[in-house]
Amino acid sequence: MAKKVGRNTILMENNPMILSFASVVSKKEGDGPLSKYFDIINEDPLFDQDTWEKAENIMQQQCINYLLNKASLSTEDIDFLFAGDLQNQCAGSHYGVRNYKIPFLGLYGACSTMAESLSMASIFVDSKIAKKCLAITSSHFGASEKQFRFPCQYGGQRTPTAQWNVTGCGSIIVAENPDNKKNALTIKAVTIGTIEDWGITDVNNMGAAMAPAAANTILSHFENIKEDPNKYDLILTGDLGYIGSEILLDLLSKEGLDISQNHNDCGQLIFDRIAQDVHSGGSGCGCSASVLCSYILKSMQKKELRNILFIATGALMNPVANKQNRSIPGIAHLVHISNY
Amino acid sequence: MAKKVGRNTILMENNPMILSFASVVSKKEGDGPLSKYFDIINEDPLFDQDTWEKAENIMQQQCINYLLNKASLSTEDIDFLFAGDLQNQCAGSHYGVRNYKIPFLGLYGACSTMAESLSMASIFVDSKIAKKCLAITSSHFGASEKQFRFPCQYGGQRTPTAQWNVTGCGSIIVAENPDNKKNALTIKAVTIGTIEDWGITDVNNMGAAMAPAAANTILSHFENIKEDPNKYDLILTGDLGYIGSEILLDLLSKEGLDISQNHNDCGQLIFDRIAQDVHSGGSGCGCSASVLCSYILKSMQKKELRNILFIATGALMNPVANKQNRSIPGIAHLVHISNY
Repeated sequence: MAKKVGRNTILMENNPMILSFASVVSKKEGDGPLSKYFDIINEDPLFDQDTWEKAENIMQQQCINYLLNKASLSTEDIDFLFAGDLQNQCAGSHYGVRNYKIPFLGLYGACSTMAESLSMASIFVDSKIAKKCLAITSSHFGASEKQFRFPCQYGGQRTPTAQWNVTGCGSIIVAENPDNKKNALTIKAVTIGTIEDWGITDVNNMGAAMAPAAANTILSHFENIKEDPNKYDLILTGDLGYIGSEILLDLLSKEGLDISQNHNDCGQLIFDRIAQDVHSGGSGCGCSASVLCSYILKSMQKKELRNILFIATGALMNPVANKQNRSIPGIAHLVHISNY
Repeated sequence: MAKKVGRNTILMENNPMILSFASVVSKKEGDGPLSKYFDIINEDPLFDQDTWEKAENIMQQQCINYLLNKASLSTEDIDFLFAGDLQNQCAGSHYGVRNYKIPFLGLYGACSTMAESLSMASIFVDSKIAKKCLAITSSHFGASEKQFRFPCQYGGQRTPTAQWNVTGCGSIIVAENPDNKKNALTIKAVTIGTIEDWGITDVNNMGAAMAPAAANTILSHFENIKEDPNKYDLILTGDLGYIGSEILLDLLSKEGLDISQNHNDCGQLIFDRIAQDVHSGGSGCGCSASVLCSYILKSMQKKELRNILFIATGALMNPVANKQNRSIPGIAHLVHISNY
């Protein structure tokens, strides 16, 4: 069963595996470089609904339905569902999954939620509390911009450091793996982050707010497990974007850790920076969730990738706190996935 | 280690225990019938801050500091911290605990959060992933009313079904208990709820929105563990208040379960209904958290109570969804605590 090493890394001991995964996105994401990897591309950002908030609920339902279907499972086969999203009170998830009647544990980790939900699902399976757990998260551009900044219709100009909130959803079923199947996508370890706040107050620079948390979690992980960072063919952060990634590499390099050769970021991968005019890249819970549950895990299935660290990062931004001149805390959780 | 029975009950197998607990409230709660049980009563609802949101952060800090001090522990002794609250993006917790540097897992379960965080802390300890986990949640009347309904200054009239959001905080350290100490407060089991939505749209009737979830979780629990409800000297719901409690008893009685003799509700216990003019009772994450972490656990220490079920209930209410005419989903998680 799972065991803690160092301050905050939990090693899995029963090789919980990613049994199935699915991703749903909308038009802008489908127009981007990862187009062919997504399971469903819904051209209509409203998903046939009358509000963005409801659109996000439907996106979660499409994602779960596709996932269960792909795995030939029904809702009764899922022991626990871990979910969260960016809508206030996590309404993207609650209204999204309310009809499934799966025992539900709500999480809030902002854009780190995919790593948090995947961590919890893995821990429950590894500890033999559950046979199968479902982890899901999403974000919707329209719902997020309206809630955190301005309604899209306002047409506010975006700053160069701004990131584009992804309309996307990713979901994963983690299942027990008693025979330790060869080539299965298994969760090896997770590292739970601490809240880091370096005083960033610019709500249009999420990358800078999250980079210290990402650096901290990555440094803790290597300190706890004493491994060579080069044994990973990809160290993938969630949605630091271009500016946040630069800060991350800089912070790590100051601590003597160079991951520049194997680092990439979901916020950089999902859009074409110039052609799609996304400034510092993609963001939102759905960014790392949909990139992980499409391009990354499919590449792992094809063995183009073998051993990765997935570090989803969250800016624990709150508009009221921001108006009260408070800085933005960040958090990052790490999941080690391997197919060896 | 923890093991699932039935659809959604997790039995603890290593007797994780409540090592320490603490509660902080403000003036109105301190004027109520449970006054003498709270650890800190802060007469100033602003806690010396300039906003209610910051007041809630300070309340969490006072609660954690008191708790650690009572247990003679430092932040380094805590393996993981589970927290959540009612402020958008759980800003009550994130800004509250950001300086403690304890590996952090954010939860959102609305007013069910104390049961969710206590469940997760217990599971981590029982599974030997952690030796000590901290669970905390809070709510603040001013911050909640402003965010979910109207600013207090508006002076809107409260409906008869309305509940009074508690300014309060509760925190617990769950620790391993290898010798299964006699009389220790141990966590025996948790039952994770499903989201239930029976179509309530009245944001001033949270009790009705949550009662079906409470009924469902209680029924599941007894179905899973096949025990006589009369073996518990208290079946304590979170904050259904007077109206929600009546609905709960009615729903259970229709299913052949009579808990009227041993049921009580934190929302009924915390205030004097008439003298304190609280209409249907108390509510908010801080209601069940502060009642559990004061009167209830202190009564268990004195063996006035021996064996209880604590079922915190959450209305997964979202003001935007409400304005879009959507109903309010509810959830309830259950924790079985015993000192036998």
